Amino acid sequence: MAATRPGPVIVLVRPQLGENIGKAARAMLNFGLTEMRLVEPRDGWPNPAAGPAASGADNVLADAKVYPTTAEAVADCAHVYATTVRKRGDTKPVVTPEEAAGEISAREGRSAILFGPERSGLETVDISLARSILTVPINPDFGSLNLAQAVILCAYEWSKVAAGSVVQPTQEDTLPPAPQEELEGLIGHFEQLLEPRRYFFPEDRAEANRRTLRNVLTRPGWNHLEVRTLRGVLSALSRTPDVRK
Amino acid sequence: MAATRPGPVIVLVRPQLGENIGKAARAMLNFGLTEMRLVEPRDGWPNPAAGPAASGADNVLADAKVYPTTAEAVADCAHVYATTVRKRGDTKPVVTPEEAAGEISAREGRSAILFGPERSGLETVDISLARSILTVPINPDFGSLNLAQAVILCAYEWSKVAAGSVVQPTQEDTLPPAPQEELEGLIGHFEQLLEPRRYFFPEDRAEANRRTLRNVLTRPGWNHLEVRTLRGVLSALSRTPDVRK
Repeated sequence: MAATRPGPVIVLVRPQLGENIGKAARAMLNFGLTEMRLVEPRDGWPNPAAGPAASGADNVLADAKVYPTTAEAVADCAHVYATTVRKRGDTKPVVTPEEAAGEISAREGRSAILFGPERSGLETVDISLARSILTVPINPDFGSLNLAQAVILCAYEWSKVAAGSVVQPTQEDTLPPAPQEELEGLIGHFEQLLEPRRYFFPEDRAEANRRTLRNVLTRPGWNHLEVRTLRGVLSALSRTPDVRK
Repeated sequence: MAATRPGPVIVLVRPQLGENIGKAARAMLNFGLTEMRLVEPRDGWPNPAAGPAASGADNVLADAKVYPTTAEAVADCAHVYATTVRKRGDTKPVVTPEEAAGEISAREGRSAILFGPERSGLETVDISLARSILTVPINPDFGSLNLAQAVILCAYEWSKVAAGSVVQPTQEDTLPPAPQEELEGLIGHFEQLLEPRRYFFPEDRAEANRRTLRNVLTRPGWNHLEVRTLRGVLSALSRTPDVRK
């Protein structure tokens, strides 16, 4: 099984606010990306506003490298993606974050994803460095992704691919349903209490009522702990209420 | 071809900062979600800090409804997801945002996703209302998703499914789970019968017993017919047994 390739380099081109650089670092590290590059950060680097916004992703900031041009920032990268809103007349392939993640994980060579300045986005000259356009499919009537959000969606999609077989948060540590005999015990307990209380009445409805009750109790697939809880409930219900209370 | 089901309701439980409510609204609208509900927002509602942070998603805020309890906020929802970090011993199914999106689009009945307060996350009592845990698979060494980021990942995954004209066939044409308020009625009925029979005893176990019972009764996702059957069973059980028989 092929090892997962390193994650993409996140390149912030002329970012404006230090706070947003910090938030981007936090977004990256949440999904295991650690390599940030900065092209001409407006307020210089390091930026004291970045640290607090990074919420602990300090190493990402400490390791961030600064480049005078976008071309230099991606010089060692084989696959460069430019995040932009999709425009008419794009001449490059346009991919979603999900598609980009798949490509990045599958391809040899380092990948980089370019993100433009908060206000204006990437310029044509930056985009021209990229082989692909990365566009987040967004509400056409309200496109308002900020920098850290765009970063987190890309990082998240990459981590899904990279995780591969890792942590499949499914129902695995839920217990299996109780053995059928425990379920039968529960159903029997219900019936034994219901019989003398004329639940299965009138006679011609009894069979259907029994079947309905059985279906209701069978469908959940309760595990043995849950069945035990319900047996306790039934025992309690068969007691005479304590009217002193 | 089945139309796409409505998106999930986003329920912010005891959110602290108005700014974060605004950011959550923006995150939602970016991916086409519009229905926000607020449970006990710390600083009241409306909150003047929310609007600027929403960056134009003002309608989401204007339409947001406030509820005194989480239970009331999800009373009309058939499928409730609680976003939490995954813990050992979860007794509910744990799904990723992607899996949740698939389920939400495929199932009959309204879905809701609960998000806890910024600092502390959802409390046990909120989680107990949900049938599933929604966990974002995150860097185990640095889990630091903020509220708006958690919301945006869920909204994003939902929009991917909703956008795909892929018709997610429902597995069965069984009825959807009963609305949450019917389930609450059933749980309340159980408790009302069990209380005087000293089921919730001793005192120091009462809370845990209540929670266990709630989990057992919540997990099945019974439909309204099944809930009605069980209400009938409880009515019968509260009768005095007929010893003549």
